[in-house]
Amino acid sequence: MELSTPGPTVGVVGGGQLGRMLGEAAGPLGVEVVALDPTPDPPAAPVVRDTVTAAFDDADAVRELAERADVLTYEIELADPDLLAAASEETATPVHPAPGSLETTRDKLVEAEAVAEFAPVAAHRAVGSAADVRAAGEELGYPLMVKARRGGYDGRGNVPVEGPEDAADALAAATGHAGEIPEDAAMVEALVSFERELAVMGVRGADERAAFPVTETVHREQILRASATPARCPAPVREEARATALDVLEALEGRGVFGIELFHVPDADPERIAGEADEGATVLVNEIAPRPHNSGHWTIEGANCSQFEQHLRAVLGWPLGGTDARGATAVANLLADVEEPEPATLGGVEAVLGEPTASLHWYGKREARPLRKMGHLAVTGGEPAAALERARRLRDATTFR
Amino acid sequence: MELSTPGPTVGVVGGGQLGRMLGEAAGPLGVEVVALDPTPDPPAAPVVRDTVTAAFDDADAVRELAERADVLTYEIELADPDLLAAASEETATPVHPAPGSLETTRDKLVEAEAVAEFAPVAAHRAVGSAADVRAAGEELGYPLMVKARRGGYDGRGNVPVEGPEDAADALAAATGHAGEIPEDAAMVEALVSFERELAVMGVRGADERAAFPVTETVHREQILRASATPARCPAPVREEARATALDVLEALEGRGVFGIELFHVPDADPERIAGEADEGATVLVNEIAPRPHNSGHWTIEGANCSQFEQHLRAVLGWPLGGTDARGATAVANLLADVEEPEPATLGGVEAVLGEPTASLHWYGKREARPLRKMGHLAVTGGEPAAALERARRLRDATTFR
Repeated sequence: MELSTPGPTVGVVGGGQLGRMLGEAAGPLGVEVVALDPTPDPPAAPVVRDTVTAAFDDADAVRELAERADVLTYEIELADPDLLAAASEETATPVHPAPGSLETTRDKLVEAEAVAEFAPVAAHRAVGSAADVRAAGEELGYPLMVKARRGGYDGRGNVPVEGPEDAADALAAATGHAGEIPEDAAMVEALVSFERELAVMGVRGADERAAFPVTETVHREQILRASATPARCPAPVREEARATALDVLEALEGRGVFGIELFHVPDADPERIAGEADEGATVLVNEIAPRPHNSGHWTIEGANCSQFEQHLRAVLGWPLGGTDARGATAVANLLADVEEPEPATLGGVEAVLGEPTASLHWYGKREARPLRKMGHLAVTGGEPAAALERARRLRDATTFR
Repeated sequence: MELSTPGPTVGVVGGGQLGRMLGEAAGPLGVEVVALDPTPDPPAAPVVRDTVTAAFDDADAVRELAERADVLTYEIELADPDLLAAASEETATPVHPAPGSLETTRDKLVEAEAVAEFAPVAAHRAVGSAADVRAAGEELGYPLMVKARRGGYDGRGNVPVEGPEDAADALAAATGHAGEIPEDAAMVEALVSFERELAVMGVRGADERAAFPVTETVHREQILRASATPARCPAPVREEARATALDVLEALEGRGVFGIELFHVPDADPERIAGEADEGATVLVNEIAPRPHNSGHWTIEGANCSQFEQHLRAVLGWPLGGTDARGATAVANLLADVEEPEPATLGGVEAVLGEPTASLHWYGKREARPLRKMGHLAVTGGEPAAALERARRLRDATTFR
């Protein structure tokens, strides 16, 4: 295998923080990145070769990106699989992960059914009406989660249902449709109480599969706040989670990193679980992102090869990098705690910069919006619990003004 | 301390691999880099906000860079201290390290005399003629090293002298002047036999000083080939080297990272040593670069904060980062082993990418020239000697064709 100058160009649909961190990982490899984003001067801009300013569904722009690239990828699920496939076909530029992975993961019901062939998931049903929700409740029991099948992120579109009386309101809240809802708009899932939320970054390479060590994720209001790696659960649970993530990769197509979110459910009622599971399985697959994921940011400082470098290697068909953890790593998100949009300004940064084991990642977004991900910080070394505590303390020392 | 978007801009004179790695370190901090280089599309270009194409001594271009930047720095000693000072004064943009540090380090005699006030160096003399060289030989003994005071790098301009009969030829070879040489062109130094070559990256912050752990460097034909950190010498020697580096920082001005090269000379004749030394000192200062240095590349994977991030923090007046090593790290340079210039193509890359503990750094230079630094690889973990062995093995698996 040879490397020349200029190295290969990776065209990325999306120029947000994930595109920026792909750009940061590309430099050392001699890889160049061009990012397509509707926002002029998006977060990726200062660290990549070039940007294309266009809507994600602008067919001409996606084709232009494909023409300029040796391989096409995406860092946002708003990328359109049909457009990617068409641009790839017209230009003979491969797209990874395969558009089929995007098709699968952008519809939560399709995803659950695809995953269920290889790994355990919560029991689930398609629903088209409040009556369907109540029927599912009869069958699976309550609580349930009503989910919009498409377009949700950071928990948007997920509404819990405690009993039949909530069904109509929950369906309306999840889908945004007050009356009748489209046939393919919603699903319900058994809400299985979990002990911990876990995540594993899986990767499909040209002819190898790999999974990073298991991360414990901490959400509040369904938004990821912090993570600790390795996850603080018994080693057999971590092994089960990693093995489950490797199984999940079978349900996906093409090359790249996949963010796989899981629940540790030691006491789950087997009636509320579906899909392929070993006897006594205590880990359920929750959601999959066909791209690097917030819960894998620990890999930048914490693994031999970051999820971003790994994604570039995978989509280029290069050998995968080492996935081992270099020690404990905790990450805390810097979410804008503002009431309304305002220019992005983070105070208290000296606390983060002054901590010798901490690394700051500022995404370069111009506007702070309520709970928007503006950056993150990582803390390495020691025990995961102590690292997590330090990360939270440093996060709490920062303020958006 | 606050961070906004866009973050501060650092203007860098020089857009080679050091400028590129500064750009790679800038992204996570939200810092933007603009690099000035005479080569269009230099190595830094794909990873920085912008480049200015101009000669290093183009006063207008340096002033333009200063106008666009919040702080000015340089990654190459060809930067002109007078121009930097003038541009800084005209634009009120600070320049770091202070131009005085560049004045000091770009003349090896001035540097030796400045360092000697704080730390031990080899005994040395200014020379203006072969007779001066022979007089120094009488006084200090042989062997000596004749050095061009300015413009040498990678050992160019350094010529050893074994006895008085070599004096004239060595002086001519070192300076490029066949007959009479300019008064300030050359110096001689006692050539002190050393057990190991060491290097320490020192850093002057706004109101703190720091030094990274001690690296062992391996040169051949006076070009750095590989390094291992921590250096394989007794702990007291490492402590002496680090303390000596901190002393050297006193001889310098302004903020930034300084690459400090040292010799471990356990059996040196005290007559052949000059400068400020504790009794029984066994470490001599060899050379100083007022910038990140090849022997500090291990810090990217090996330290909590890389020398490049550290340099950015320092020149911006931010808190310094952690200097602790995260474990053993070895680096091997990828030097173009070509006979004459040709397009840059490195083969055997799969060996480096396939080693889980190795990281590749390809500098994106278009042309391979004999012994040009085209990239490096780093290997982490285990003992330094074993890491060095792995790094060399991986380097040897690559070939320029």
